[in-house]
Amino acid sequence: MPASEFDIIHRYFREGAGQISGANANAIRCGIGDDCAVLAIPAGEELLLSVDTLVETVHFPKSYAPALLARRALAVCVSDLAASGATPLAFTLALTLPEVDEVWLAEFSAALAEAASEYAVVLVGGDTTRGPLCMSFQVMGSAPSGQALLRNGAQLGDIVFVSGNLGDANAALAFLDTQSSDLQPHQRELLRRYHTPAPRLALGQKLRNLATAAIDVSDGLVADLSHILKASGVAAVLRLQDLPLSAALIKHGGAIDSALSGGDDYELCFTVPASRRADVEVLSASLNLALTEVGYIEAGSGLRCYDAQQNLYSPRGGYQHF
Amino acid sequence: MPASEFDIIHRYFREGAGQISGANANAIRCGIGDDCAVLAIPAGEELLLSVDTLVETVHFPKSYAPALLARRALAVCVSDLAASGATPLAFTLALTLPEVDEVWLAEFSAALAEAASEYAVVLVGGDTTRGPLCMSFQVMGSAPSGQALLRNGAQLGDIVFVSGNLGDANAALAFLDTQSSDLQPHQRELLRRYHTPAPRLALGQKLRNLATAAIDVSDGLVADLSHILKASGVAAVLRLQDLPLSAALIKHGGAIDSALSGGDDYELCFTVPASRRADVEVLSASLNLALTEVGYIEAGSGLRCYDAQQNLYSPRGGYQHF
Repeated sequence: MPASEFDIIHRYFREGAGQISGANANAIRCGIGDDCAVLAIPAGEELLLSVDTLVETVHFPKSYAPALLARRALAVCVSDLAASGATPLAFTLALTLPEVDEVWLAEFSAALAEAASEYAVVLVGGDTTRGPLCMSFQVMGSAPSGQALLRNGAQLGDIVFVSGNLGDANAALAFLDTQSSDLQPHQRELLRRYHTPAPRLALGQKLRNLATAAIDVSDGLVADLSHILKASGVAAVLRLQDLPLSAALIKHGGAIDSALSGGDDYELCFTVPASRRADVEVLSASLNLALTEVGYIEAGSGLRCYDAQQNLYSPRGGYQHF
Repeated sequence: MPASEFDIIHRYFREGAGQISGANANAIRCGIGDDCAVLAIPAGEELLLSVDTLVETVHFPKSYAPALLARRALAVCVSDLAASGATPLAFTLALTLPEVDEVWLAEFSAALAEAASEYAVVLVGGDTTRGPLCMSFQVMGSAPSGQALLRNGAQLGDIVFVSGNLGDANAALAFLDTQSSDLQPHQRELLRRYHTPAPRLALGQKLRNLATAAIDVSDGLVADLSHILKASGVAAVLRLQDLPLSAALIKHGGAIDSALSGGDDYELCFTVPASRRADVEVLSASLNLALTEVGYIEAGSGLRCYDAQQNLYSPRGGYQHF
């Protein structure tokens, strides 16, 4: 006899990712298992929330390892909290499964619990249904009232920064299906970046009173920076020779196009007034994370990219969801 | 050329269900279109939230009218807020579509906007992906701290109440695919109950300081009341002759089994101390909604059902999600 939905939820999720501990104990008044979860938002803070859906063969390959999937899916969604400067709090998972595969569920839920603990979010609710493999995560966090990082605050003269390196995850798409033993070391490094993106939570929180606008790079730098430009009513210039590229990506080739148009890196792109450039340097040192100046905001609309010879460069478009 | 995800979201959802108005204007600091939505929870209140997923052919028939689907899906999810005594605030929608069908989207989004306005919830975020038709709604609301209705508060001697009539929506499953013109009037009435459930929001809010436990009847009275019993560590007795049945359901036949085991009604089942029976009568009158005493809580575990001759009756099980 197939297990009921309630058994599945209880066995695999409540005892793992649904475990309320330490930092979240005060905030989560009621977790999994009632009609609603009940959360207390800290006084003086606002609720920040974001939703991400992942569909098999669209957002991850068929037969993708459940442990990698759980970790990557939660990271992708938590990355939106990072981009908004939120302190993570809780999440829900709407999981659609073609069948009750207990091995899959055990691996998925164990990895989810581990990632949830790392990001300090607790699973507070969800829904399990039968259908083609698909999952929607909603993450919730909080930030002091009025301090959430939005896309619409970039100002003329602001500097455009990006964290970490860009383009690695995109380059890995070429050998997602290749046996690890057939890969060279630099390819394995790119693959690692695809499988285990690191939401820039500490950076986002530190940017609250520093950045004028921020976004996470999920669809490619060109596409995501363009969202900031459109929301802020400004234009920008990017200097291609300044894009932060990993040694592994340079060895792989096609680095500039990967960095400009490849998604899946989940680094942050943000704008900061030129007068506060030094604060970004201090922050970079304290977080031990590269924060690279790649361009600036100017009047107008749209994005222009220049190569080292000051020639205008036309990037490929970002990821199109349809 | 296919429209981009961003165009779709903007055109069909932002201008409709995403419209921030009146009651929600203070609470919603940032709606659709940023990395995160930002909500202000009223001072002294807690956040209540719930997720529901609906998959084509599992939770609604193939080619189900998009306008009915949007309204029913949101109602089903808002019903969890009702059962918890929440004041609705906002919702997100993760929508997976096999293709960009603009006629479908126009009808779906218009009906969604209408239902959202009726329940006073605003669409504040979401995700649109390509895949088999499937949607996850997350609804959010608030209630004064400590006053959310949970499942675990039922006490010995409490009376078990249900709102409205039970079993109608379940009976309609038999002729969901029948042409309306081939249906008799009582069948049309049952079908209306299936298509347009009414979340009992006003009732839930009034039960905050009256009910000891509450749940919405989505999987059938036996299954859902059993959740209250298990969470509260008590047993209950149901009197079958007291179940509230519509004339349409009685005419249809099989009324008791539909009322006990049929889901999809989205009425509330709740427990109230016997000393406060009169308050429920006053509430019923003020809401113009039948609130019917169907049994009582006793010590032990499990649920026993008695017919008019005091014979024990074994109900069929509730809806199994797998």
